[in-house]
Amino acid sequence: MKPVTVGVLGLGTVGGGTVNVLKRNAGEIARRAGREIVVTRASARDLNRTRICATDGITLTADPFEIVNDPDIDVVVELIGGYDLAKQLVLTAIANGKHVVTANKALIALHGNEIFAEASKKGVMVLFEAAVAGGIPIIKAIREGLAGNRIKWLAGIINGTGNFILTEMRDKGRDFVDVLAEAQALGYAEADPTFDVEGIDAGHKLTILASIAFGIPLQFEKVFTEGITKITRLDVDYAEALGYRIKNLGIARKTEDGIELRVHPTLIPKRRLIANVDGVMNAVLVCGDAVGPTLYYGAGAGAEPTASAVVADLVDVVRAMTSDPENRVPHLAFQADAIADIPVLPVEQIKTAYYLRLTAEDKPGVLADVTRILAAHNISIEALIQKEPPQGETSVPIIMLTQLTLEKEMNAAIAAIEALTTVSGKVARIRLETLG
Amino acid sequence: MKPVTVGVLGLGTVGGGTVNVLKRNAGEIARRAGREIVVTRASARDLNRTRICATDGITLTADPFEIVNDPDIDVVVELIGGYDLAKQLVLTAIANGKHVVTANKALIALHGNEIFAEASKKGVMVLFEAAVAGGIPIIKAIREGLAGNRIKWLAGIINGTGNFILTEMRDKGRDFVDVLAEAQALGYAEADPTFDVEGIDAGHKLTILASIAFGIPLQFEKVFTEGITKITRLDVDYAEALGYRIKNLGIARKTEDGIELRVHPTLIPKRRLIANVDGVMNAVLVCGDAVGPTLYYGAGAGAEPTASAVVADLVDVVRAMTSDPENRVPHLAFQADAIADIPVLPVEQIKTAYYLRLTAEDKPGVLADVTRILAAHNISIEALIQKEPPQGETSVPIIMLTQLTLEKEMNAAIAAIEALTTVSGKVARIRLETLG
Repeated sequence: MKPVTVGVLGLGTVGGGTVNVLKRNAGEIARRAGREIVVTRASARDLNRTRICATDGITLTADPFEIVNDPDIDVVVELIGGYDLAKQLVLTAIANGKHVVTANKALIALHGNEIFAEASKKGVMVLFEAAVAGGIPIIKAIREGLAGNRIKWLAGIINGTGNFILTEMRDKGRDFVDVLAEAQALGYAEADPTFDVEGIDAGHKLTILASIAFGIPLQFEKVFTEGITKITRLDVDYAEALGYRIKNLGIARKTEDGIELRVHPTLIPKRRLIANVDGVMNAVLVCGDAVGPTLYYGAGAGAEPTASAVVADLVDVVRAMTSDPENRVPHLAFQADAIADIPVLPVEQIKTAYYLRLTAEDKPGVLADVTRILAAHNISIEALIQKEPPQGETSVPIIMLTQLTLEKEMNAAIAAIEALTTVSGKVARIRLETLG
Repeated sequence: MKPVTVGVLGLGTVGGGTVNVLKRNAGEIARRAGREIVVTRASARDLNRTRICATDGITLTADPFEIVNDPDIDVVVELIGGYDLAKQLVLTAIANGKHVVTANKALIALHGNEIFAEASKKGVMVLFEAAVAGGIPIIKAIREGLAGNRIKWLAGIINGTGNFILTEMRDKGRDFVDVLAEAQALGYAEADPTFDVEGIDAGHKLTILASIAFGIPLQFEKVFTEGITKITRLDVDYAEALGYRIKNLGIARKTEDGIELRVHPTLIPKRRLIANVDGVMNAVLVCGDAVGPTLYYGAGAGAEPTASAVVADLVDVVRAMTSDPENRVPHLAFQADAIADIPVLPVEQIKTAYYLRLTAEDKPGVLADVTRILAAHNISIEALIQKEPPQGETSVPIIMLTQLTLEKEMNAAIAAIEALTTVSGKVARIRLETLG
């Protein structure tokens, strides 16, 4: 089958990331989607700029209308941001019968109702997973994964810049203005940071989340927003002392009287998982009446995390375009004829770090014997605790953390250690993963 | 359009929960799916047992084959568990052209390859979101939401019983055997706990996750499993002292040599979010090459959390059966004609708790004035800190946490407090949510 052709509007951070991910993972993506997905055209304001992606095979243009009007383009990916031009391009693409994938939260929050109405008339898809919380598939989770629930409320850290600033203020005792300047230098915050620090960006995203959670129209103009600019180190510290963290949350809650839509700095109990989401990371907590609280965590911005959501939407489009509609998503994610029989490793060939605990006589040379055995099996020690022997006992517990080790080597080392006359009983071993 | 008819095999905890959720949320579910979903038949071994669900309108039978052979049933929901009978029923349902939704992890892990092949031949859907991590839409997240990624590894707390036991051992310094007995009394663990504590149940779930992550066949027989029965309080404490938690993880990792599939107790750094997933809760950490680490958290078992996943699958089935295939999932989750214009509350009508900080003269009566104003506006104080005045100063910071308060009342109270001559400057106020 011929590849699905994609035209990308905007080749900045997310556009470049999307081109890179589609190219790098082309094989895996085609195995999932059942068809190749190829970027054939892209638009950029400045055609001569250095980019994060290669553009070979892609016809570039400075005029994005050429792409939305190109009969050879199946799907338009809108990544230029902003309102008016983006809206015009998306509506033209829809009018031309093209499916649209967009990462533009402002566009969806403000003009989504109109855009979706046009898309429904033309029978085309408009997907926007990347518009909220970057790479976290939160739209899909709420719209499909929690479809059996009445959603009671949701609360999200959905602006990475704001979360980075609040995290730095707490961890390093720094002031708002100081951290904002750093965030700007790091590229986390725009030169004009209003959208991020005044809650506008989070308000756009909350508008979308609330709409799909409660089945209400998009209505950004009704969101209450309060920024984080007035948060002081003093308040961060007092909150901490009281057992709370200050996070900038977007909150949507259904009450008997109506729906609350609000973005503001919020004290939340430290023990909640979401209170421990730090730096530029995003997380959304969704509470359904059947499922209870669920949390979705990941990178909320950046070239490739956002591209991850854009490409997932493209795969959804392709699956809906080409698969048997009765069986849209392959049972095992990959098309049945694309399942690969990659070998599964026997446990002896697995590499992990280890926690080891053994009981040894408290006399010179014992530890040296143990470490000599480990070294002979290429096992490096990361940390070691040797306790004093308990009153009246002559043996001591030795606890070690090792670096990455082949399981086979560890088995042999443990057998050798257990054979030492100075070591009693079995060596307790638990594998260790940093999950970094 | 006539409702989609569902036959439920097994009316135990999950079956009862599914019937309850479908009935209670019928309106909301139909607004999402575009069609009513009605349980018309159900099977149960003992027809006279007391159940958690009402069965009016449902024709009961002791013979599940009546249901899979009933031409009036559109979708079969298999919730009886186990291998042989479940397999026979599911294959019969498929042969009869019915879609199947199942929560049976053992069935999918062991017989999924065969079942999916039959389903593909017949063009019917077999969905199994509830088979892994209960209400967390983790199958959907990996299979669709992360479809643009090469998955590098995943690690999950996917057995609630095991996590409950390890959490209790750590928090209360209790022994494994002791906590296991309690888990059995609470109904978290089976009378024969082998599947849970020896990692078999987690192995079934890991088999499924690895298959959809890497595009490999289901191959439970190749999973390495080690139980948690040998974990001692001593190891839990030493791990803690070294900055680690012990969690029972299912881990799947793609390496250059092949795929690792393993379930075992694992030390993980305390600072990781997943290290803080406690009790019977589940979480899965998935790392894709584009998106980086993402985490999915929620209830991994129980009547309604599992029903949440079963019903989401039913909605997916109905959407695929009835919607315009070009636009399978409505843009805003609910069918366009079912969007409800529920009022959005003005911020004055929102209720939250508050953190307040004010600066007052350090003399008798000031605090009484402040608390009198709060009381007059029906604001209850939850906690109060009054600091000593800094050296040489006569004013002190007062910090208060309030209980739930109407924003309008809080605005009025703050205005009155700021008008006190003994209070200087503005009152700092930050909203507080327990997210409980």
